[in-house]
Amino acid sequence: MFLESTAAKKLQALSQHPVDLTQELTPERIRSFQLEAQLQGLGFTLYYAMERVTTDVLAALFALAKEMRALEKMQAMQAGEVLNKIEGYPSENRAVLHTAMRDQFDAKQTAKPAQDAAQMAAKELAKLEVFLKQMEGRYTDIIQIGIGGSDLGPRALYIAMEAFRKPQCRAHFISNVDPDDANQVLASVDLKKTLVVVVSKSGSTLETLTNEAFVRSKMESLGLNPKEHFIAVTGEKSPMDNPSRYKASFYMWDFVGGRYSATSMVGAVMLGFSLGFEKLRAILHGAHDMDVHARSQEPAYNLPLLSALLGIWNRNFLRLPTLAIIPYSQALLRFPAHLQQLDMESNGKWIDKTGKACPFSTGPVIWGEPGTNGQHSFYQLIHQGTDPVPLEFIGFRKCQRGHDLVIEGSNSQQKLLANLFAQSIALAIGQQNENPNRFFPGNRPNRILLADQLTPYTLGALLSYYEHKVTFQGFIWNINSFDQEGVQLGKLLANKMLDLYKGTGASFPLGEAFL
Amino acid sequence: MFLESTAAKKLQALSQHPVDLTQELTPERIRSFQLEAQLQGLGFTLYYAMERVTTDVLAALFALAKEMRALEKMQAMQAGEVLNKIEGYPSENRAVLHTAMRDQFDAKQTAKPAQDAAQMAAKELAKLEVFLKQMEGRYTDIIQIGIGGSDLGPRALYIAMEAFRKPQCRAHFISNVDPDDANQVLASVDLKKTLVVVVSKSGSTLETLTNEAFVRSKMESLGLNPKEHFIAVTGEKSPMDNPSRYKASFYMWDFVGGRYSATSMVGAVMLGFSLGFEKLRAILHGAHDMDVHARSQEPAYNLPLLSALLGIWNRNFLRLPTLAIIPYSQALLRFPAHLQQLDMESNGKWIDKTGKACPFSTGPVIWGEPGTNGQHSFYQLIHQGTDPVPLEFIGFRKCQRGHDLVIEGSNSQQKLLANLFAQSIALAIGQQNENPNRFFPGNRPNRILLADQLTPYTLGALLSYYEHKVTFQGFIWNINSFDQEGVQLGKLLANKMLDLYKGTGASFPLGEAFL
Repeated sequence: MFLESTAAKKLQALSQHPVDLTQELTPERIRSFQLEAQLQGLGFTLYYAMERVTTDVLAALFALAKEMRALEKMQAMQAGEVLNKIEGYPSENRAVLHTAMRDQFDAKQTAKPAQDAAQMAAKELAKLEVFLKQMEGRYTDIIQIGIGGSDLGPRALYIAMEAFRKPQCRAHFISNVDPDDANQVLASVDLKKTLVVVVSKSGSTLETLTNEAFVRSKMESLGLNPKEHFIAVTGEKSPMDNPSRYKASFYMWDFVGGRYSATSMVGAVMLGFSLGFEKLRAILHGAHDMDVHARSQEPAYNLPLLSALLGIWNRNFLRLPTLAIIPYSQALLRFPAHLQQLDMESNGKWIDKTGKACPFSTGPVIWGEPGTNGQHSFYQLIHQGTDPVPLEFIGFRKCQRGHDLVIEGSNSQQKLLANLFAQSIALAIGQQNENPNRFFPGNRPNRILLADQLTPYTLGALLSYYEHKVTFQGFIWNINSFDQEGVQLGKLLANKMLDLYKGTGASFPLGEAFL
Repeated sequence: MFLESTAAKKLQALSQHPVDLTQELTPERIRSFQLEAQLQGLGFTLYYAMERVTTDVLAALFALAKEMRALEKMQAMQAGEVLNKIEGYPSENRAVLHTAMRDQFDAKQTAKPAQDAAQMAAKELAKLEVFLKQMEGRYTDIIQIGIGGSDLGPRALYIAMEAFRKPQCRAHFISNVDPDDANQVLASVDLKKTLVVVVSKSGSTLETLTNEAFVRSKMESLGLNPKEHFIAVTGEKSPMDNPSRYKASFYMWDFVGGRYSATSMVGAVMLGFSLGFEKLRAILHGAHDMDVHARSQEPAYNLPLLSALLGIWNRNFLRLPTLAIIPYSQALLRFPAHLQQLDMESNGKWIDKTGKACPFSTGPVIWGEPGTNGQHSFYQLIHQGTDPVPLEFIGFRKCQRGHDLVIEGSNSQQKLLANLFAQSIALAIGQQNENPNRFFPGNRPNRILLADQLTPYTLGALLSYYEHKVTFQGFIWNINSFDQEGVQLGKLLANKMLDLYKGTGASFPLGEAFL
């Protein structure tokens, strides 16, 4: 068990006296505590001098990764081993192969399960390429109906890539069972020229089927034939795998979890339509290159593993219960919401892989908004609240859209980066002042991932970086990051509650019948 | 000091054995632990049986409110007393009069500072009404340029009200200094028919002035005269209060803090344009009625005060560091981001009003996304993570847009509410199971605020409810919820960093010159 490892005991001892950044953050430290990886000649740099670590702490964290076999587990996962399971109890017992979705370039997996999965993905990609060519110019809009992993990841990627989309190809999303959600989207499109992708692995998600019926009914009321507009993304043989109702079907499989599915057909159909197939391929390529990096680099040189270890230091040794993820990029507006699901649904677990209660904290609460916006908002608490909040910043050397303007000696992109670096350092070093209201305690741990420019390729790499960071943490805690039993009870009770509504119009509190 | 009060000592003792909801949540308890207030005949109901409180705990919380003089401070605030200050140190020394912005109906304040402020607000409202009439039909879009309180609140309100906006009057927002933000918005409007509201109290906010220059330059490049399009919302005599550059100016004052300013001209110009003046008035009316409720009801009957006290129980006695706010309404998509600022910037403070360090936790980390979406995402951690996360749910009896559809015996609105109530109860009662992965510990404290329908009036009341909840917590902790010294250091360092950029093109790490 993780806490009993030699490395964890060492970390426990070291955590009694973490480095004081208000004294120790020097230019020399900034130069030493950084890791750069080159993917296709593009630098991804992690600056972590602003974390409360020393070379001793780092050595112990790397030893922890070795003791917990983090890298071997990553290699096993990408090769297709059955890692989604709890020993001794009924569980999903599945391989975890979202990496196969983008194993379409070099350095291909040779293990059979991974190879098979990559070939199945290649087949769907080829189908999609043909389909998109056939549809070219016939539709102006696409609506994605899905929820959870079928919504948050694809939506975050689409918003991140709006600078690169085809001018005449917009995407929209309906997720919530709230009828106002569907009505709002339907009010903004011309359904005659709209494709609708319905995404549900089981073909039985309540919200998604409800919204599908909602949109079909609207189409029929306009005299349109839904079959000419609806596309299914679902499991083979699911109730939705039905050519009589859909113009086309694309498949997803139970070895790709919802929150890891953005690079499968779950995201690919909508992204391929709105960005074009080549840019979709670039996203997959970036993700794949980060997959290869994650499985092949030793802890000290492995970006997602190093980030995972720094997170474990903050969570289990400095005992900080939350994590803010702050992209200094407006295009990444909804990326934190995706990462919130990715991390909290993966690692919000109370038992380990043998079914025993974890005697340590697992996944933290993840939240975030883009900077600089947050600086004028919740940064007050981060700088001067009673509880330290660790932060992960994301930045880019260049902006997405070429147009920028020099005002008072600097352009907007420089102002953005100046704010990012200034915040990172201010949080670490704090400020002395005689006025207690102008005193900043500092020692707010944070790190920066800096990439070149938020292109499709970089976005894919960034997505994969976070997937692997979360997965590495699960490997080290020895929990199952790939199931989600915790979302089942609510579904059960919601159905029970709905049965009470039916006919009666009962309202809350529902009384004896329910409890 | 709050922790030394008799009531806090009693609460400390009671918190050693909080009620076990897995055993004690009964229909009888649900019926007893609820508070309904009627505003203009509309019921706002707080269901709090799912909080870990007993009648003893509630009695002690009400006693705490009395000992800390919460209600008197609220009355003093609304009357215009100078509450924004730290004793013995230089501080802002201002009244806190956002409530005056909507004191335009019945039960008007008679204290002079509040009356004066309400009259100044009335004058701006009258100017706005005339201005909007003059502009009628001439513009199709409005862009709001602002950041922090000049962005998050207005934006959240606009998104919440899209169902009610005029079909030909869309609003857009530019906040981030990221040049991609402005470029994205500019790509989606016809500037010839666009008004631009620039909002900055000081007239000197870096991001806002940069974005203003950005948009002006774009207009000029199209041969348009910015003066025909730009409106200023700013402090009287600020550098932006300049008729030669703006078509119109509306004023804001230093007794309305940014995060409390959505019902001032900061939100009113854009909301008046897009919704029409009458719906803007309805928002103000709802806020005002909740203001009157908040200052006049005893703790046991006061919605925001009761909610504040339940929050203090969770934060200081059950020691829970975060709070999720989950609206079961897609229209409230960005409302949690506004509340995040409102709460964390107000109460993320380490000193009390005498400048002494607080020996207790103040404001929690606030985060949230709409339900049912969250159910397919981070609810995993909330149900089965290692740390309990308290929740505040918001729900509505009716949807906003009339159109709904019965599918399998219930309509979407019923499904939405069934999910809300099911989650609330599931989080409280948990579930026993032999399979540890299907065991839910329960005792996740939560409450539901249920209102009739998300109309302009209800939205105003909801906004005010949260403003007062946050303020009441600040009153009880005896901290200053109205300043924001914590956002200053970053600004200072950003400017220092920018000076380094200038001319040199220096990149991170900046080395000796900076640290």
